[in-house]
Amino acid sequence: MNGNHTGHAGRRSPLEPKADRETVRRHNLSLVLRAVRDEVEMTRAGVAARVGLTRAAVSSLVEQLLDSRFLSESGKTFSGQAGRPGTVLKVARTGVAGVGVEINVDYVAVCVVDLAGTDRVRLVEHLDNRGTPPAQVLGRAAGIAARALASAAEQELRPVGAALALPGLIAAGTVRQAPNLGWIGVEAGAPFAEALHALRPALPALPVRSENEANLAALAELWFGGLGDLRSFLYLTGEIGVGGALVLDGELLRGANGFAGEIGHVPVAADGPRCRCGARGCLEQYAGQSALLRAAGIDERAGAAGVAELELRAREGDRPAVSALTQAGLTLGRVLSGAVNLFDPDAVILGGIYRPLFPWLAPPVGAELADRVVSGLWPGDSGRVRASSPAADAARGAAALVVQDVLADPVAYAHRESH
Amino acid sequence: MNGNHTGHAGRRSPLEPKADRETVRRHNLSLVLRAVRDEVEMTRAGVAARVGLTRAAVSSLVEQLLDSRFLSESGKTFSGQAGRPGTVLKVARTGVAGVGVEINVDYVAVCVVDLAGTDRVRLVEHLDNRGTPPAQVLGRAAGIAARALASAAEQELRPVGAALALPGLIAAGTVRQAPNLGWIGVEAGAPFAEALHALRPALPALPVRSENEANLAALAELWFGGLGDLRSFLYLTGEIGVGGALVLDGELLRGANGFAGEIGHVPVAADGPRCRCGARGCLEQYAGQSALLRAAGIDERAGAAGVAELELRAREGDRPAVSALTQAGLTLGRVLSGAVNLFDPDAVILGGIYRPLFPWLAPPVGAELADRVVSGLWPGDSGRVRASSPAADAARGAAALVVQDVLADPVAYAHRESH
Repeated sequence: MNGNHTGHAGRRSPLEPKADRETVRRHNLSLVLRAVRDEVEMTRAGVAARVGLTRAAVSSLVEQLLDSRFLSESGKTFSGQAGRPGTVLKVARTGVAGVGVEINVDYVAVCVVDLAGTDRVRLVEHLDNRGTPPAQVLGRAAGIAARALASAAEQELRPVGAALALPGLIAAGTVRQAPNLGWIGVEAGAPFAEALHALRPALPALPVRSENEANLAALAELWFGGLGDLRSFLYLTGEIGVGGALVLDGELLRGANGFAGEIGHVPVAADGPRCRCGARGCLEQYAGQSALLRAAGIDERAGAAGVAELELRAREGDRPAVSALTQAGLTLGRVLSGAVNLFDPDAVILGGIYRPLFPWLAPPVGAELADRVVSGLWPGDSGRVRASSPAADAARGAAALVVQDVLADPVAYAHRESH
Repeated sequence: MNGNHTGHAGRRSPLEPKADRETVRRHNLSLVLRAVRDEVEMTRAGVAARVGLTRAAVSSLVEQLLDSRFLSESGKTFSGQAGRPGTVLKVARTGVAGVGVEINVDYVAVCVVDLAGTDRVRLVEHLDNRGTPPAQVLGRAAGIAARALASAAEQELRPVGAALALPGLIAAGTVRQAPNLGWIGVEAGAPFAEALHALRPALPALPVRSENEANLAALAELWFGGLGDLRSFLYLTGEIGVGGALVLDGELLRGANGFAGEIGHVPVAADGPRCRCGARGCLEQYAGQSALLRAAGIDERAGAAGVAELELRAREGDRPAVSALTQAGLTLGRVLSGAVNLFDPDAVILGGIYRPLFPWLAPPVGAELADRVVSGLWPGDSGRVRASSPAADAARGAAALVVQDVLADPVAYAHRESH
């Protein structure tokens, strides 16, 4: 059964307004730009064959994209695609760029990506954002972003927007709550944009949006994780909190209010430890960074250094470390089994601190899934439990989200100055 | 963020083949038929206004639909819609019909619906299907369906297909497993169709498909439950097993392999009672029909009579009965909190045996959701926890699914005999 069986959706059938020439051209510019981006290198003939437009139409669109510096052309000819050999088109390595800023509990990561999605600047600073007023945290993050933008400028990248990745529930751009940051009802985009503009006044003020950090990490995984045909997965990111996101057939599942994926607050036990969200026994009280470090006998305030220490001790076979990871893995595996039974993804991907700790978490997680997933599709060695890609994180996902907007309508982002 | 941000989906853009006149006409016949179905009564002018075709085109389409007996026309005029008053069109109350057959652990329900989705025949027989070979269960169900079809024939309904609703994992029409029936790898459609054809040889052999019972109950709720604007919900059905389904924005979420929604096998405790699925501590061992009856001190083999007895005792304030329901409600609420945190629906709908037991289950379920849902959108009295509609069940959903196919392409189901 597919969409047309599921009820009265779209029961009204208004005729779509006729697309005018300008709209069609903008759409076709996007088609051509995305075609080149997807294939990395392409001839005009290759583009024409792929997007189903005439060679003449494609040439005209390509000229405009070269003119606006979204594409660049190299002299070399290339005969691997349809049509006669031609000069090779690539997306420009300079010009428009997206900025991603992950503000997490104990670090800020900034990433600038170019039109191809390549990670061109990356800056991570470890600092404790707990108990600090949101405006101050956003100011710090803006300072780190300003340093990253200085590097971007040296590479002739022109940021056209930024996205903030935040560990909390975001609705309509507002952080409804981020329990581990202690934020409730914070509008983060505008203060960040102002602080950044104050630090880099030469730059036009950037539009800034806010998104859930795990959602962006999952999108980064989808876009840059080398997943091949894998299009449906449950993504978990271990940090101070435990974030999650669901991707089904290449689409992020946001839920009715944009709050889907909060696996960190799936109850593990009726009367477990009190969670920052106010409830008891949430998964992150068993498998979050603090719980893991504490169980291994490591100071939970040690943050990233503590996680590195945990990995080191596990590698050396330290019993409390291995036992803490096994117990956390069993609990993770139990909760993941429930999530897999509910949602039926093709894989579970573990990111954040779970990526370095994967060798010790994967066996208990896999064993629980093998025991508890009712479809029988999750035998222990199925490769359905994976560590996230080192190339994908929330900051890169955030930056790439901005670039997606450019790809969808390049005209809206064309440089206004003459060149 | 929407679809166009989520990656490379649809990266190939092949030109769609040109629709020929015949295809367009079949599509338009479907549009017109669905328009009349949705509005119950319509004039030709009303249809034209709604579907965006000319009055002349609509008249020609309507003639064909009247001719094929998908629509009927009444003499009365009607001026409540666009255009001049005209005779009133309705979908025909005789002719094509869908057959739904729910085969559950302790009952079989058959439902025949007409083109309007109205429940025209309903037959429920209580019997224990456990430990009976699948072929025999399917034969019994065919016998019940044959009796229902005799009633349908008297009402001049012409069944064009049947759907089986089964409490198990269905992939490509095969029951991969239905733990509570004890079925593994059963192809149910063909044997059912053959048994039915043997009993009603005058009828052309019906195409029969198999679907998950909770999915069909959720679709019935969506189509017939009077949900108004509610388009995203988590549906739970209490039976011997506990089935579930997720509907997001009016679409059933099937998961990567069609196995989504198995909330009955979400783990409640690491070392709980052994479940029929092979794992331990699954929700249905705490909140399924048998567990509930046992906890209330009622013979779990009593089936539907036992559930009625439980309801009666709870109504009388019997302490073990109320306590069993409260405990089951707390466990249900805890698992539902996790599911809501993962999936973010607008409501939770409780069906099957949970519908009559709703007055005692709703308070503990609501209290757990209020405590544990991290978005804070689920205060105790929010109306987000609802009992299913008495008008909606899996058998009706199954029958309506067949009718959906007719609505999508009526020409394929036009009567072949002359009339």
